[in-house]
Amino acid sequence: MIPNIHYSELKDSYLFRRIAEKTAAWQQEHPGEYLYRMGIGDVTLPLCPAVIRALHEAVDDQAEKKTFHGYMPECGDPTLRETIAAYYRRLGVELKAEEVFVSSGASDELGDILDLFGRDKTVAIPEPAYPAYVDANIMAGNRILHIPSGRESMFLPMPDPDMDADIYYICSPNNPTGAVYRKDQLKEWVDFVRRKDGLILFDAAYESFIEEEDIPHSIFEIPGAESCAIEICSLSKTAGFTGTRCGYTVIPEALERGGMNLNRMWVRNRTTKTNGVSYIIQRGAAAVFTEEGQEQIRQNIKVYKQNAVRLMKALDRCGVKYTGGRNAPYIWAECPHGTGSWEFFDLLLNRCHVVATPGEGFGSCGEGYIRFSVFGTPEDTEEAAQRIEQFLNN
Amino acid sequence: MIPNIHYSELKDSYLFRRIAEKTAAWQQEHPGEYLYRMGIGDVTLPLCPAVIRALHEAVDDQAEKKTFHGYMPECGDPTLRETIAAYYRRLGVELKAEEVFVSSGASDELGDILDLFGRDKTVAIPEPAYPAYVDANIMAGNRILHIPSGRESMFLPMPDPDMDADIYYICSPNNPTGAVYRKDQLKEWVDFVRRKDGLILFDAAYESFIEEEDIPHSIFEIPGAESCAIEICSLSKTAGFTGTRCGYTVIPEALERGGMNLNRMWVRNRTTKTNGVSYIIQRGAAAVFTEEGQEQIRQNIKVYKQNAVRLMKALDRCGVKYTGGRNAPYIWAECPHGTGSWEFFDLLLNRCHVVATPGEGFGSCGEGYIRFSVFGTPEDTEEAAQRIEQFLNN
Repeated sequence: MIPNIHYSELKDSYLFRRIAEKTAAWQQEHPGEYLYRMGIGDVTLPLCPAVIRALHEAVDDQAEKKTFHGYMPECGDPTLRETIAAYYRRLGVELKAEEVFVSSGASDELGDILDLFGRDKTVAIPEPAYPAYVDANIMAGNRILHIPSGRESMFLPMPDPDMDADIYYICSPNNPTGAVYRKDQLKEWVDFVRRKDGLILFDAAYESFIEEEDIPHSIFEIPGAESCAIEICSLSKTAGFTGTRCGYTVIPEALERGGMNLNRMWVRNRTTKTNGVSYIIQRGAAAVFTEEGQEQIRQNIKVYKQNAVRLMKALDRCGVKYTGGRNAPYIWAECPHGTGSWEFFDLLLNRCHVVATPGEGFGSCGEGYIRFSVFGTPEDTEEAAQRIEQFLNN
Repeated sequence: MIPNIHYSELKDSYLFRRIAEKTAAWQQEHPGEYLYRMGIGDVTLPLCPAVIRALHEAVDDQAEKKTFHGYMPECGDPTLRETIAAYYRRLGVELKAEEVFVSSGASDELGDILDLFGRDKTVAIPEPAYPAYVDANIMAGNRILHIPSGRESMFLPMPDPDMDADIYYICSPNNPTGAVYRKDQLKEWVDFVRRKDGLILFDAAYESFIEEEDIPHSIFEIPGAESCAIEICSLSKTAGFTGTRCGYTVIPEALERGGMNLNRMWVRNRTTKTNGVSYIIQRGAAAVFTEEGQEQIRQNIKVYKQNAVRLMKALDRCGVKYTGGRNAPYIWAECPHGTGSWEFFDLLLNRCHVVATPGEGFGSCGEGYIRFSVFGTPEDTEEAAQRIEQFLNN
């Protein structure tokens, strides 16, 4: 028995491990010193009261015979699917509940969804990119077409007539660059991918951070996307679900390739390979979409946005160029004076006691950049911003 | 873009749908009549108090900044992994915490784990079998070696020197037959699969129903299994987690094939394709393994076992032959007088108002059998048993 040989083609996943190792070594040398963590994009604010209440109620349901829930529908609770469809309607996107699938979160779904495409596909991945896009496709035996981007496009690569892939990843607002596509730019992508008979995997995990009018929250705001796109979304950053785990995926009923309907294929996948998402967690997720829940998560997002404003102000004062921060929870900054990603990481760690994420870890075109997450506490962000400002201005 | 063509090779998944359709049609014709559901293996008793308390505490943790949990370790909370390893130690199986992976449940894991093996593998599936074993392997493009079994082996097929597969599924206690392998029989399988350089996927979802001494709860009770087996387990039936979702998978560090270490491959899979199981749910799962939790789930299992005893008594009185019921939550009965699976299903529905599961749905060698689940309420089971007894004796 030879296991999946593609695992041997994976490069060592060193980005977050190397950060953890360097940070641990530093802390050993500096016992008792506090570190300002702006590296991993994990949230710090607790779940909002409406979600907590719904979770407690759901736990109580599981304690009594007459309210107990066993197996859940594999594609998601029908009411939650309808609730999410209604959320899309507010964006001007008409969806049926059956086009929405409840998931355990975007990272789980980004891995699982590849099963629909089989192997030996060509997958276009604009870079810098979330490292798991590349790794999951290597595991699947797909060919990867790396699409590097840089300052000249403001990290928003556009389709190129020579590009030829089966699947095109698009992440907007982007992780790690915080860059966002405008409607006309996404339309160009949709038109291109339709002409190529390809498929867009749209990662909308950060959509709730969008504040400008012309920036689509969903790929389905673009006419024609319903025949060429799958959208993967998450409550991790929207509602602080990184450790609670729930998300959703939209696969339009109109989405067909090679005579096969991808919505029906995914129904078959879910009913074969899962028993659905926990009843308790789905009840918590449903509370996010109530009026009360929406108001409460907006308050939390506001806190993170104020962090972004504070950090952008510091970078502006130091003349550091960056993308993101405005419609996204990440700020992607050019390392000053031509320093490399890891070199600047070390400087920030040693001089400011700030942990960020070296851009090189998101693909080689990320060299010379560093990513700041805005999910820290306001106090930490304030202190980190002051330290960065002081360090860079001296 | 051509999607995964193997989906077009799937047969229509009609078993549970056809049961649902027939049941719905019957109810429409008999408004107000009560049905005794012994079909789908879903539990009816609520979560035990120790689990409910832990879930509430975990929800409270998520409400406060200082106790809030973000991203969980992808392979499971280290304490829970150690707790499960300690549970195995009580079975006489020495495991490291790093050999235990927390999952969202056995059905999720049975689908995901196939990623480790790549495609075009030959997979031996003893039948009758849980239909998802077959479907997940068709999706993966694997060849399926169906191993039919019947009364002559008491539905416990043994290895045959001519069998040649990469992966061998073994489910004991078995779904749907309730049959259980003794230690010497499992040793024969382990020795055979090691000689073949193959791999056993051991489904132990029903281990907590074992009451006899000589029946292994884990494949790792068999010497040598650590170099040829992966075990997938679930809290669904053990602790009523069908709708709450948590399970665990054991991949020994010693498990290597083709120079690749399967434990390390799974770590890489989980860290790429998931962000771990919900903190709240893992806290609930941990409570199952406390002394209090173990005592409470034993009480629940006792109720289901009394259902089994009641149903077996009825079948005995009617001279119906069956396997299971003693170390398993399923009773696999021969349809009397040579009636077919669906014919007997209809008879039970129309004459007794009892819903069971036709054996034919688990593979063609299940024709002529029917599966009863013991997860109903004691009241329903008592009434159903009386009705079956009365019907079959007249």
